[in-house]
Parts: sequence; structure tokens; C-alpha cells
Amino acid sequence: MIIDVHGHFTTAPSQLDAYRGRQLSALNRPSRGRLLITDDELRTSLIPVIQQLDDRGIASLIFSPRASGMGHEIGSFATSRYWSEHNNDLIYRATQMYPGRLIPAGQLPQSPGVTPASCIDELERIVTQLGFVGVNVNPDVSGGAAPFTPPISDPWWTPLWEKVVELDVPVMLHASSTVNPALHLNGSHYTNSDSAVAFDLGWSDLLERLPELKIVVPHGGGSIPFNFNRIRALHIAAGKRPLEEALRQFYFDTAVYDRDSMEMLIRKIGADNLLFASEPFGTAKPQDPATGKAFDDTVSFVNDVDWLQPAEKEKILSGNARRLYGRAAFGNID
Amino acid sequence: MIIDVHGHFTTAPSQLDAYRGRQLSALNRPSRGRLLITDDELRTSLIPVIQQLDDRGIASLIFSPRASGMGHEIGSFATSRYWSEHNNDLIYRATQMYPGRLIPAGQLPQSPGVTPASCIDELERIVTQLGFVGVNVNPDVSGGAAPFTPPISDPWWTPLWEKVVELDVPVMLHASSTVNPALHLNGSHYTNSDSAVAFDLGWSDLLERLPELKIVVPHGGGSIPFNFNRIRALHIAAGKRPLEEALRQFYFDTAVYDRDSMEMLIRKIGADNLLFASEPFGTAKPQDPATGKAFDDTVSFVNDVDWLQPAEKEKILSGNARRLYGRAAFGNID
Repeated sequence: MIIDVHGHFTTAPSQLDAYRGRQLSALNRPSRGRLLITDDELRTSLIPVIQQLDDRGIASLIFSPRASGMGHEIGSFATSRYWSEHNNDLIYRATQMYPGRLIPAGQLPQSPGVTPASCIDELERIVTQLGFVGVNVNPDVSGGAAPFTPPISDPWWTPLWEKVVELDVPVMLHASSTVNPALHLNGSHYTNSDSAVAFDLGWSDLLERLPELKIVVPHGGGSIPFNFNRIRALHIAAGKRPLEEALRQFYFDTAVYDRDSMEMLIRKIGADNLLFASEPFGTAKPQDPATGKAFDDTVSFVNDVDWLQPAEKEKILSGNARRLYGRAAFGNID
Repeated sequence: MIIDVHGHFTTAPSQLDAYRGRQLSALNRPSRGRLLITDDELRTSLIPVIQQLDDRGIASLIFSPRASGMGHEIGSFATSRYWSEHNNDLIYRATQMYPGRLIPAGQLPQSPGVTPASCIDELERIVTQLGFVGVNVNPDVSGGAAPFTPPISDPWWTPLWEKVVELDVPVMLHASSTVNPALHLNGSHYTNSDSAVAFDLGWSDLLERLPELKIVVPHGGGSIPFNFNRIRALHIAAGKRPLEEALRQFYFDTAVYDRDSMEMLIRKIGADNLLFASEPFGTAKPQDPATGKAFDDTVSFVNDVDWLQPAEKEKILSGNARRLYGRAAFGNID
């Protein structure tokens, strides 16, 4: 069985972007407004996603709103609140259409300079009322500008982390847009954010203080596996616990698109701390002219690793996700 | 013969930091001030560097001011100008003590929001008067805050790039400090900067417009080799030229500290576009308890690659550097 822990609703009907367009055109007076998408429109927009899951033999997909769309840096808390509520409600409706196959994860009404405690109401709503099993948290709320976001290990975040522990929902630390003109959203910003948060998770005492916090770093952890000994050296020079030990406390997804990188990821992070992800549909949707296959067709990259035991492959492909996402009812397609 | 293209003067006598302390304590009235370091003090501070070059069999080291010390985000152009001049003069004196072994590269008086054309005077001084063979350019002048630095492909940078082409000096795009509290200088900021500039070099038309521009991206290119197919997929989706083709136009240094990562770097980037670097002394100075050797003791990581031809190893270890740094007179120690 295969569970993919990382999918965003990138095929949503255009009414969603139209809502956002109207919302951002009237930033001075935030209102809930209306988002009208029929069930038929919603079902149609999901067809390619379900088709790809079928084609790849993926039983379940953790399905959340489009990451770049979260746009927490824009407007006020009220802006982000209405936008998050609409997105989460839409994810709820979508996942209700495919129970067990699409598993809901949410976004939060984060806003620059506003305490993360302000997100707890929406987190409780989506988890306790709508049955969401995970949540995306943007570690860079302002998109890399002032007011800067404190590192995720800063006490500023603690109220939110305590609540996700209480609700037992894993957090995917996924960046959204950036205001830095030198960064490219998919080419550098996301993976840079992954690298920074993974470094901080190892370097800080956050997971020693809150060992029950379940954190997933997307996209294979950015540069962490490649820069592994660079970071080990820093840990040793600073008298920190070894990086290898810190890495036992959180998870990386496998949203990388080379066999080469997948194998490095498995060597460096280990089967116990990896969650399969191919991100349908994200950056890697195109076909690789070198192989004739889509870049995001990566299940075989795990299955073909001949130095991995079957039990280890099973952990990566679904076992770790079953354990981590305690609230989820996954599908049973083999 | 081995040339290391990446060494900063991290053992400089404390008078250098003391100068900076006084300078930053009087930001409101920039003045040239005085930096007094005797020849004996300077020579003593260089002993460990030369010792390490001897121990590792490294003939020549491209030697530049401490990267984190550049601190371009602080103060005005005048602040950066006086600071750069003192640092460059000190590098000149140090390299004069070991001609052929320490090869001078400089820093520039970059300042947030100030045109890079303002750096041309200092660039011409160090190259034409002091014999510098390369220059470090900070692609993130403000350290990640407003006023943001345009991407290196932006026309904002063109006057500086045209001048380095005219003078025929390679540019190492090396970040300095950051003001973003969520980033760690050595743990995430530098390598994130490497990833962002390497992406932009491939994505933009900069090197098609200025094919003679010689660019070196440090630290193995951040996450580029690991995220290789992610970026290939983006290029394909956008109708850009293939990443592999773009990568033929610039260089990565090999300042990574795993055999694993070195081999991935060589596989992905190729022997023609790599320059050996171990960065004495940088992040990787400590000893690895797993091997009993220093992390930065990496010459063997190249020499031991059994699928590399001797001619390819020679290119990485010195041949490419000899070709690229046309102004340098390298040492002859084998």
C-alpha cells in the first residue's frame, strides 16, 4: 500500500483564484465574501488527481490547499482568516467525495507579526469539526521580509505547537510565497525554507522540549542530505547533540525526483523517518525526456533500492504515515 | 597539483575585528580610521593556514576576506568602502608573504540599494594595482531585508558584470551576514544563497547575454545537485533551455564534506565545471568522529572516485582553476 503525504489542490476551479482576486482588490475591508463552486465543478477538477493516484497505485493522498496560494504575507489576520476558511472548506468538500483516498490537511490564518496562537480556532475547527488529519504551517509568514518570522524553535510558536500536540496532528512546514525578488518560488524559495527549518529542528531544543510534536519537512529536506557533513561539523563544533540523533525526531518527505537523490535521502535520513511523497500535481509534473516518464513518477525509486529491506520500503511507502497520521482513515487499495 | 579556490582569512589578528567594532560604534561618521597589524602578527596568524595547505598537499589557495565579516547590510557605502579597503589591503599583505601559495581575491564596498557600479573603483584598484585575481560578490547585499537585492541576472548588476569581464576576474557569489532571524549563517543562509543564485544562473539569460562572465557558486551549489530533477522539470515546463546546458556556463566549487555528496556533485555537474575547494578554515574544520579525519580533508574524495579519469581529476583539482583564474601565478608544489 502506498500513501502520498504531500498533495496540494492545484487543479481547483478558477472561482477560487477569482475569490482571491476580489479579496486582494479590497484589502482595506476584509469580509467573508462568497465562494461558489458546484459539486460537479469540484468533482471534475479532481478527476486528474484521482486518475494519477490510480495510475501510480497510490491508495491515499494527504490533500491540502495550494501552498503558494496561502499568501500569508498579504493583508491582515482577517484577510488570511477568510481565505483559510474558504480553502479548508473546499478541501473538506473535495475529500468527502473520495473518502479514504483524499485525506484532508489544512492551512491556517497566519499573518505577519500576529501570534500563531491566533490560528488555534481554525485549527480546532478543521480537526475536530471537519476531520482534518494534518496541517500545513508556513514557517516564513511574511515571505522573507519585515516583520520577520521567528525561527520555528522560538517560544513565539509554542502555543500553536502545544495545540497540535494536543490534537495529535502532524505539521508540514511548508513555505508559501516570498517577497524577495531574488528568489524563485519553486526553484529556490521552497527548498531554501525546507533547508532552514530542517537545520533549526536539529540545531534547536524544540523537539527536546516538545518530543510529541510531529513535524514533516517537505521536498526531501531541501539541501540537508547533500550538505549532511557540513551540518554534522557545525553540530560538533558547537557541542550540540549529533545531527544523526536529532534527525530521529522528525520526518522528511520524499518529494525529490532523481533516483540518485532518493537513494541519498534514504541513506542519510533512514527508512524510519521518511514519508513517501510525489506531490501530485506540483513542480515535477512534466515528462523527463531522458526517461519518457513523468518526473513525479517516483514510486519505483523506493521500490528499486536493492539495499533496502521490504519492511523498510513499507515504512517509507505507508507504514510511517499510518503511524504518524493517527487521525487518518486511509484507503485500502494495494 | 592542487589549487583550492575557496579560503577566507578567518584567522586574522583581532585588531581587524577591533577596527570593525569601532567603526560600527560610530556609524554616523564614517572615516577611514587606522588598522595597525605588524608584519610579525600577520605572519603568525597565517601559520595554521600554510600548515594545513602543506599537510593536504595544496599548492595554492585563493585567499579572500572573511565572508561573514563583509557585513554589507550595515551602514552606508562609506562604511563598506573603508571596511573593504582595509580588508583588501590586509589580504594583499598576507598574500605577498606567500607568493604563489596564497592568491588574493577581494571583497567589494557593496551597500544596500546602492548601484553595484559604485564598486568598480575598488575592483579596479585591487585588480590593477594590487594584483588580485578574483573577487567575492555578495548576491544578497542587504542580508535578506528591504531594500531587497535584485537577482544577479537583473540589469541592476550589469555595470559590475561588464567590468569583471573586462578585467577578466572570476566572481565567487558568496553571501555574507543575514538579518533574517530564522536563518543560521553557516547552517542555512550561505547554502540557501548558493541554491538561489545557481538556480537564477540557469534560469535567466545572464550568461547568454554575458558569456564571458566567469561565475563560481560556492559550497557545491547549495541544494542544486540534490534537487537536480526538480529544477530540470521547471526548465522543461517553462520551455527554458535544459538545465544541463545552462550548467555548462558556470562553475561550482567542491566545498562539500561527504564522499557521497562529492560524488553526486561530480555526477551532476561534471568535471569541466568544478573547482576544488575545501575552505581552510571554515565550517568543516572539526574532526569527524566517524573517520577520525577533519571534515575538510577532502582531496581524497576526488582522488578516490574510481569512475573518474585522471584527466578529469586533474581538471577538478587544478586544471579548471588554472584556466579560469587567468591572472593568477599559482605555486608549483606537487
